[in-house]
Amino acid sequence: FSLCPLTITCRAALAWALNSPLSVEEVQAHPPKAGEVHIKMVSSGICGTDNHILKGRLSVSFPLIPGHEGAGIVESIGEGVSSMKSGDKVLTLILPQPRECNPSLHTVGNFCQKQDVLPSFALTLDRTSRFTCKGEKIYHSFRTSTFTEYTIVPEIAVAKIDDAAPMDKVCIISCENPRGYGAAAHSAKVTPGSTRVAYGLGRIGSVIVIGCKASGTSNVIEVDINEKKFPWAKALGVTDCLSPKLKKPVQEVMVEMTRFGVDFVFEAIGLTDMWVAAWDSCPESYGFCMIIGLASSNSKLSLGALMIFSGRTLKGASLGDYKTRDCIPQLVTAYNGINIDPLITHELPFNQIHKVMELFYAGKSFSIHCVLLF
Amino acid sequence: FSLCPLTITCRAALAWALNSPLSVEEVQAHPPKAGEVHIKMVSSGICGTDNHILKGRLSVSFPLIPGHEGAGIVESIGEGVSSMKSGDKVLTLILPQPRECNPSLHTVGNFCQKQDVLPSFALTLDRTSRFTCKGEKIYHSFRTSTFTEYTIVPEIAVAKIDDAAPMDKVCIISCENPRGYGAAAHSAKVTPGSTRVAYGLGRIGSVIVIGCKASGTSNVIEVDINEKKFPWAKALGVTDCLSPKLKKPVQEVMVEMTRFGVDFVFEAIGLTDMWVAAWDSCPESYGFCMIIGLASSNSKLSLGALMIFSGRTLKGASLGDYKTRDCIPQLVTAYNGINIDPLITHELPFNQIHKVMELFYAGKSFSIHCVLLF
Repeated sequence: FSLCPLTITCRAALAWALNSPLSVEEVQAHPPKAGEVHIKMVSSGICGTDNHILKGRLSVSFPLIPGHEGAGIVESIGEGVSSMKSGDKVLTLILPQPRECNPSLHTVGNFCQKQDVLPSFALTLDRTSRFTCKGEKIYHSFRTSTFTEYTIVPEIAVAKIDDAAPMDKVCIISCENPRGYGAAAHSAKVTPGSTRVAYGLGRIGSVIVIGCKASGTSNVIEVDINEKKFPWAKALGVTDCLSPKLKKPVQEVMVEMTRFGVDFVFEAIGLTDMWVAAWDSCPESYGFCMIIGLASSNSKLSLGALMIFSGRTLKGASLGDYKTRDCIPQLVTAYNGINIDPLITHELPFNQIHKVMELFYAGKSFSIHCVLLF
Repeated sequence: FSLCPLTITCRAALAWALNSPLSVEEVQAHPPKAGEVHIKMVSSGICGTDNHILKGRLSVSFPLIPGHEGAGIVESIGEGVSSMKSGDKVLTLILPQPRECNPSLHTVGNFCQKQDVLPSFALTLDRTSRFTCKGEKIYHSFRTSTFTEYTIVPEIAVAKIDDAAPMDKVCIISCENPRGYGAAAHSAKVTPGSTRVAYGLGRIGSVIVIGCKASGTSNVIEVDINEKKFPWAKALGVTDCLSPKLKKPVQEVMVEMTRFGVDFVFEAIGLTDMWVAAWDSCPESYGFCMIIGLASSNSKLSLGALMIFSGRTLKGASLGDYKTRDCIPQLVTAYNGINIDPLITHELPFNQIHKVMELFYAGKSFSIHCVLLF
């Protein structure tokens, strides 16, 4: 069945150990087994979740090839793969959609139990690896591993996309875009004219702003520790920018600014202290607090019991609650409507991965959106 | 303006101090001031929140007259009261609806800042009291104080109801009914055919079951520590009953029973441990966990950060998110449709208040719904 059943030797950026810098190595990408797809990467985004892996904030195994926001071309397919063929344009998906699991069949929900984020085995579905380097087994990352010229992904975690898709850019629609845009425009069921605030103006926060504007709002506030980001925020359409380095807690300032609190609050940082600030920023009676940022696996959210009773809603969302294989290709097709162009500030070739990672880490203090080109 | 501007001397059950038994005393109910209504009580329900007050789980002041689920007849009105007149049938409301505050004007939300539950001043809106006993100032409870033959309540916390309302029963529609029924049938936006579970089969839990059945469901599970309640639950339409005294955590059993977890979970006990169990009982991808039980004012809810990210919703609701003065009269009019009769197991006269309280405390181990008749 496989059109190219051979092992492919290619370059990949891998992390040999926790906290070690990425190392570009020659690896073997082994043929896809049944239900798997061999993909030749065209581009990959760099996401905070990849950094969580490298820094041990989620439990994984090393050595591994990170990356999950991938756009590529199907190289070959394993036995039984029917939804795509060699030459198709595809995105890799951090959340699979088998179309037969409980969240797939339910009217809402997308967090399929075959995902490999929480917990992470860092292996394919049959708990083996498809990569080796110097004879050593190399672990996968989120079953996607996109920092490599060739990767192997289960069919259920691959979305076939429009032939016209600009492959150097659409990689970010595999995760960043649905996660932020979808949270604001799909998950939160925001009402036009409401006030919104996004905590954190990184990659996700930027897309949240775009989603808020697209779903109609009078007022989008942005909170970020770095005031250098504020002109970028204004360009995206943010009404007010606020630094949390204030004399009083940011949630108090937020309530004062808006008189009663902000109707919809989005946390896109991944710090539970900020989750509490987000929760406290919204009106106690009807506020909607959406958690997008992925926090460390051992962290806890602690909320005062009384302030739950009053009517607020807390909701998490992963990829904007979109059914991934059904909806993400639609987002790609709608790409010009959403306009992701301003969200890609840097495109660098794969051989400059160290430079890309430097830019990404610099992104901690400024909104830099990097894409890796193969 | 007041048709009866005199101080009325009447009997009231008051608590002289924290944890002290109720004492029936002769009290003075002073005339209503501007914007207030003097009400002759006809009946009052006894609610767990009243017990929270008596046991110091919410911060209040003593001596006070407890009670908030009241049905009565307007005796007289203070200056400026326009929405009711002497002789009107009314319910007292734990949540006022001034129709000019932020939650009143917002499309959703009902937790008006003029409520006196969180925090509680135990006084009228002008921070004075309308009751004295033996010359001593007596505090109010939730600005309603219904364990008295006459009470004084702000107009914004009084709902004028249908003249045909059966006044011995409808008192429970002032709180218990909207809180439970409304949570299931209004706040949670439950979908027909979904599975639901209620933690706690007390007064609120019973009404949640009725609300679940009314909004169409294949499966309602009930969890209670006392198996003696299970026949009562079955009579209300519960499909399965479960005791949390199991070898493994009840949330694990719940997920096993339903395969993926319960679509909608309602916590009606008020213990944060049970909130966590409720949270963990629903599918990580799309579960809806609704907190109805009022926990102690110093308690905290602690949730693992990762299990928020996957898509669940946590929502509190007070009185089912109903705009109280607008919607509670409609529930009274719909009373036969909802059928609250099975929810009133005991009706006793006011002079048997000690017996009523005994029954109420016995209700901790069985579903007893008491109403006090004046």
